[in-house]
Amino acid sequence: MKRLLVTGARGFIGRNCLEPLARRGFDIHAVGRIDFPVPTGTTFHEFDVLDQNHRAELLEMIRPTHLLHAAWDLTVDDYMGSPHNYEWVAASLDLTYQFNRQGGRRAVYVGSCYEYRWGDEDLDERATPLEPRTHYGRAKASLYRLTRDLAEAAGFSMAWTRLFFLYGPHENPRRLVPSVITSLLAGQEAPTSHGMQLRDYMYSVDVGDAIAALLDSEVEGPVNVATGEPVRIADLVEVTAEICGSPELLRIGAIAGRPGEAPRVAGTTDRLRSEVGWNSYTPTREALEMTVEWWKQELAT
Amino acid sequence: MKRLLVTGARGFIGRNCLEPLARRGFDIHAVGRIDFPVPTGTTFHEFDVLDQNHRAELLEMIRPTHLLHAAWDLTVDDYMGSPHNYEWVAASLDLTYQFNRQGGRRAVYVGSCYEYRWGDEDLDERATPLEPRTHYGRAKASLYRLTRDLAEAAGFSMAWTRLFFLYGPHENPRRLVPSVITSLLAGQEAPTSHGMQLRDYMYSVDVGDAIAALLDSEVEGPVNVATGEPVRIADLVEVTAEICGSPELLRIGAIAGRPGEAPRVAGTTDRLRSEVGWNSYTPTREALEMTVEWWKQELAT
Repeated sequence: MKRLLVTGARGFIGRNCLEPLARRGFDIHAVGRIDFPVPTGTTFHEFDVLDQNHRAELLEMIRPTHLLHAAWDLTVDDYMGSPHNYEWVAASLDLTYQFNRQGGRRAVYVGSCYEYRWGDEDLDERATPLEPRTHYGRAKASLYRLTRDLAEAAGFSMAWTRLFFLYGPHENPRRLVPSVITSLLAGQEAPTSHGMQLRDYMYSVDVGDAIAALLDSEVEGPVNVATGEPVRIADLVEVTAEICGSPELLRIGAIAGRPGEAPRVAGTTDRLRSEVGWNSYTPTREALEMTVEWWKQELAT
Repeated sequence: MKRLLVTGARGFIGRNCLEPLARRGFDIHAVGRIDFPVPTGTTFHEFDVLDQNHRAELLEMIRPTHLLHAAWDLTVDDYMGSPHNYEWVAASLDLTYQFNRQGGRRAVYVGSCYEYRWGDEDLDERATPLEPRTHYGRAKASLYRLTRDLAEAAGFSMAWTRLFFLYGPHENPRRLVPSVITSLLAGQEAPTSHGMQLRDYMYSVDVGDAIAALLDSEVEGPVNVATGEPVRIADLVEVTAEICGSPELLRIGAIAGRPGEAPRVAGTTDRLRSEVGWNSYTPTREALEMTVEWWKQELAT
């Protein structure tokens, strides 16, 4: 039996993983600080990853064979620059150590494209140096190295996802795509920046499905979870506005762009497609239609 | 007032720091898992660094402005390769985070020459890449990066010592110099390997004094605590045997050397000498005489 502990299960990433994981036959123990309706077959446990006693009690009780560590705190002010990221490194590393000590065999983590040095080339797990410019990126890159090294020392299996840009169900309503959707559905204007940057945007339902496939595989090390086909942000919001039926409320260029923004950020997908064997991308328009539909239902409740 | 928390205070490094720190006017709170006689003016607290509740209670009670983190567990089997090193990274990072959160302003750590890539050049804080080959070295190098990054994010002052090879009071009796001394003083043969390697050996009393000077300075970042003048191990033990008065019991070459041992390991000392301004090296023969004297007294009690 694959007994799986999912941290951050209520978050944007964790939440999108639960159904595909259940379909793959994992016995899922979803943990988080706040209870929420979990899919059938999944057990929820109230849990604070930052509390060592909680970690010990929970691992003792569940004795998971698998770990999906999706928890991280992005709610603090300036989360990209916050020292709080390092408290999460400490707690995440200790969780991993204790997970393995009680018998855990495979762990998968949620990392980020912010670990890489951003340049002209597509960001690649093997070729691109880790040179993060933010404390969020540095903390994630350090935790990657530590969990990789600990896995080698202790002899368990680990993989580290690097996520790029996301949209879809369960996203924080203040982020780009949901803020455009919720404004337009409310009949309000949606101001955005010029949006000329190319970004590797992936549908969160696909991200959850890809992570579940990775966890269920034996692939180890860093794996980009990306499309490899970046879109112009302006195009993404224009299609979104069309689907919402009110393209005239979109105000592209009404907000000043941030200086020094990278013109293009995309990830290579060879490991995900060839090694994990995951290739079930939802076409962008279809994914945006389902996202708008999800927000309609969310706003109606 | 400089209120200092010293972890690992009973260990080889911590113990040698206490007197020079007291001379510099620190209000010292020495912590460790086992009580021991501390110098006047120093307070001992029983403490397990690995326990989050202990960490929280102790920091709340002492509210240190300064931290010297010398604790690490070298008593496990194969400590160079043990996964246990990563539990110490997690605990050390969390200790640092909580130390700063309750008002801590400056932290100094005990790192190691095992963080560096060993090559032909003297190991240098700025020029030599961190490419550790052991899990001990990797764990220390990761903790270095994390505490440096956290210090930058949170705005406190940090320095990271890199220690090389040591001998002197309070060393583990199974290590090279004490094992030779205790064998010879007991009238027994002391077998060693060929000892042709050059190693940067420093007297532990000097190491303690140098660390105290660094902690009391404003120097930040990595600082080698080394002599820059490596000795042949065979020479070191020959002088030791002479001082013990039984050079005929020394059996150099009686033990096979380990294959692949680096011929020379030494550290540059510019930062320690020029920036910290510490330059009070005890001559090797004098240091070995005092070491032998210390072991005579230790064995007599």
